[in-house]
Amino acid sequence: MNYKLIRYILGWVLILEAGLMLPALVVALIYWEREGFALLSGMGFCVAAGLLLTLKGPRKKTMHAREGFLAVALCWIALSAFGALPFVIAGAIPNYIDALFETVSGFTTTGSTILTDVESMPHCLLFWRSFTHWIGGMGVLVFIMSILPLAGGDNMYMMKAESTGPSVGKLVPKVKGTAGLLYRMYVALSLLMLVLLLIGGMPLFDSLITVFGTAGTGGFGIFNDSMASYNTYLQVVTTLFMILFGVNFSFYYLLWKKKWKAAFGMTEVRIYLLIILASIVLISVNIYGMFDGVLETIQQAAFQVATIITTTGFATTDFNQWPAFSKTILVLLMCIGACAGSTGGGIKVQRIMILVRSIRNELDVILHPHHVRKQKIDGHVIEQSTVRSVNVFLVAYAAVFALSLLIVSIDNYDFTTNFTAVAATLNNIGPGLEVVGPTGNFSGFSYLSKLVMIFDMLAGRLEVYPMLILFSRGTWRK
Amino acid sequence: MNYKLIRYILGWVLILEAGLMLPALVVALIYWEREGFALLSGMGFCVAAGLLLTLKGPRKKTMHAREGFLAVALCWIALSAFGALPFVIAGAIPNYIDALFETVSGFTTTGSTILTDVESMPHCLLFWRSFTHWIGGMGVLVFIMSILPLAGGDNMYMMKAESTGPSVGKLVPKVKGTAGLLYRMYVALSLLMLVLLLIGGMPLFDSLITVFGTAGTGGFGIFNDSMASYNTYLQVVTTLFMILFGVNFSFYYLLWKKKWKAAFGMTEVRIYLLIILASIVLISVNIYGMFDGVLETIQQAAFQVATIITTTGFATTDFNQWPAFSKTILVLLMCIGACAGSTGGGIKVQRIMILVRSIRNELDVILHPHHVRKQKIDGHVIEQSTVRSVNVFLVAYAAVFALSLLIVSIDNYDFTTNFTAVAATLNNIGPGLEVVGPTGNFSGFSYLSKLVMIFDMLAGRLEVYPMLILFSRGTWRK
Repeated sequence: MNYKLIRYILGWVLILEAGLMLPALVVALIYWEREGFALLSGMGFCVAAGLLLTLKGPRKKTMHAREGFLAVALCWIALSAFGALPFVIAGAIPNYIDALFETVSGFTTTGSTILTDVESMPHCLLFWRSFTHWIGGMGVLVFIMSILPLAGGDNMYMMKAESTGPSVGKLVPKVKGTAGLLYRMYVALSLLMLVLLLIGGMPLFDSLITVFGTAGTGGFGIFNDSMASYNTYLQVVTTLFMILFGVNFSFYYLLWKKKWKAAFGMTEVRIYLLIILASIVLISVNIYGMFDGVLETIQQAAFQVATIITTTGFATTDFNQWPAFSKTILVLLMCIGACAGSTGGGIKVQRIMILVRSIRNELDVILHPHHVRKQKIDGHVIEQSTVRSVNVFLVAYAAVFALSLLIVSIDNYDFTTNFTAVAATLNNIGPGLEVVGPTGNFSGFSYLSKLVMIFDMLAGRLEVYPMLILFSRGTWRK
Repeated sequence: MNYKLIRYILGWVLILEAGLMLPALVVALIYWEREGFALLSGMGFCVAAGLLLTLKGPRKKTMHAREGFLAVALCWIALSAFGALPFVIAGAIPNYIDALFETVSGFTTTGSTILTDVESMPHCLLFWRSFTHWIGGMGVLVFIMSILPLAGGDNMYMMKAESTGPSVGKLVPKVKGTAGLLYRMYVALSLLMLVLLLIGGMPLFDSLITVFGTAGTGGFGIFNDSMASYNTYLQVVTTLFMILFGVNFSFYYLLWKKKWKAAFGMTEVRIYLLIILASIVLISVNIYGMFDGVLETIQQAAFQVATIITTTGFATTDFNQWPAFSKTILVLLMCIGACAGSTGGGIKVQRIMILVRSIRNELDVILHPHHVRKQKIDGHVIEQSTVRSVNVFLVAYAAVFALSLLIVSIDNYDFTTNFTAVAATLNNIGPGLEVVGPTGNFSGFSYLSKLVMIFDMLAGRLEVYPMLILFSRGTWRK
């Protein structure tokens, strides 16, 4: 294990983080908020630690899978650990574990909050809190690697560990190119949404926050009732963009390359949209009568389905009051999640596809033992190792889920609260049901439970393996 | 697919079932209950259908995996479909779907009931209801195959499909021998328990019912409060035998062969006992103060842990009133289940072992990509195909769970009820939490939900694949 390389990358990530706090500092200046000093101190800590870690460059610059995975895990932990400082220093979230929970929730684009009154927070900290969503959505490591003087090494592993879904489709041959392209599409979509929100009359600050929360599929808002007080136009725009940011970014790449047929033929995207459509129809029928008329029913169902499957976590209504069937659909959508290669969380539609097909294959083995079969998606053969990795992913996911559920239950909340709290954090959604429902928050949990959920949020965003590697003896053995 | 062979086996299974109803008929004669006629009619239907199906023998007697799996699925459905008749004919359970639910719950050794007042049932039907547990525990197909004039074909597939756990350890070379040995150990353990219960002063009828429920890890009782009114000695004996019947029967085989070291070295059995011990300790600490003194606390914790992990489902207390931590442990134990090669349900300890190791292997692949690794249990290499099959098992299990949860939620019970109702039926436990807790029952669910849970119970007992094969197009294509 090349620890020196990891240390070096870690340092650069912290220096970058100081830079990423700059926009929030500008907000502090505009609103003339004293909490700007807390941001400044945070930046100071980042730069100091960053410089210390980058004093000596690594001798060997080769990066294997293990370095990629470990670096990603440690960088995300460091980002969160330092990103939490402004909240503590400003006194806005006095307890460090609470601040860490909120920051991890931000970077991992979860959107679960321990704040009981978000409206009392200063603008600059609200901005930083939501900006972490936007940063976390696309990830920072690939970005770092593309500007760092380390280029030449194979950064694919890092990208694999940080991006979502079972395999990184190599859009363009070099990581640098791929990364640049992804970031450009991400920024373009974000800008488009910003314009549409501004047209709808949303104030600039609100619009930025909403864009950050939507693009990163995070879900932090600035009102206690999340998005319920915004008008229908703004809710519809947000619904659409949540769905768009949950789409596999390969789709946009193909569109950009004018490969219409390939783009619209992408099985994952089609299944993703189909699940959304089916869920909206089923929920609309189930909740009919709770809202005024068919249109509002569909609009509310659509918003909630979009916010949950993309794991954003905004809310316009308290779906905790909905009938059990609708709530169960939402809980299942929590676990399914968005497309691979999107900013969304959850197991991912592509993994679900591979998993369902592996059931079919297994039945086929019983029916025709000597038949050779291979999984294909859109004409591409899925490697046997990918299928195995996806299957084991489900195992690891279930194991983390079960263990978390057990520890969180010590707090003695009801089973539904505990189950959906773990589901909401592990899948990076935000709200769950009952105590952690859309009108509730996570402040009541013990620090032990919060630490468990901090782990779950990171495990969800980094798709389990990088976080588990931290606990593998082999990782720390010379 | 050799449909004629399957038809032929199906016929013999029904004829055997008529014979299996005989003991209940004797009970009817002893207690001079008119419901004996319902049993007689049931036997008549079984024999008639059986003779019709066995009129013509199959030309080809070869059996592949597909025939084995399909035969097992169809036979269990037929057993349940005809086994339900006496309840309906006697008018004890007027609705056929309810009667089917109860009978499937019996054969699959689940123990979930739709009866609101079990004490009002006649003795002969109570006997038949519990006797199905005892039959279902060991399975009937291997028995049929060992006496049928089909011998010579490879019945391993049938045994694989009907017995529990990822792989049938070939105890003795021939299925006939293995099966005979298993049944003998099963009968011996049952008799031992019967004697111990009789010594404790339990009436003969009660003792038989309790033995059937324990040996099959079923859980049907004859009192509305299950086993709460029996004295401590009887509860302790039942606790011990529940745990004993949840042990992999290879353990007893090794003991019988005097291979002490191999027997007590069985990793699965050790982990199984370790899980039980840890759960008892954790729950005892958690519920301390709810019972009189340490000993009763431990005894109650032990009974509930044993009844849930072995998926028996007896109850001596309403654990629905316990704190969330203890309830969560019980829910997790529901899913873990007993040892492979036992009469218990759930995922099975051996599968959990293989699953956990596959996580470790996957991490190892990241750390050392070129390292060749093989899973071993007690020195035996686990075939790659077994590991894959176990991984896919979890996928199929989760898929059945999720889909069932969705359909059952239409009835609009709370999430905990729905979740644990599915968990209790799919893992063949019996009771769940809330509405389906130890003091509740399954009568309130809609017929749709009951049908789903009937499927789940069969899927749980037959370990998913045989039931899924029924829905595979390839099964029914010439």
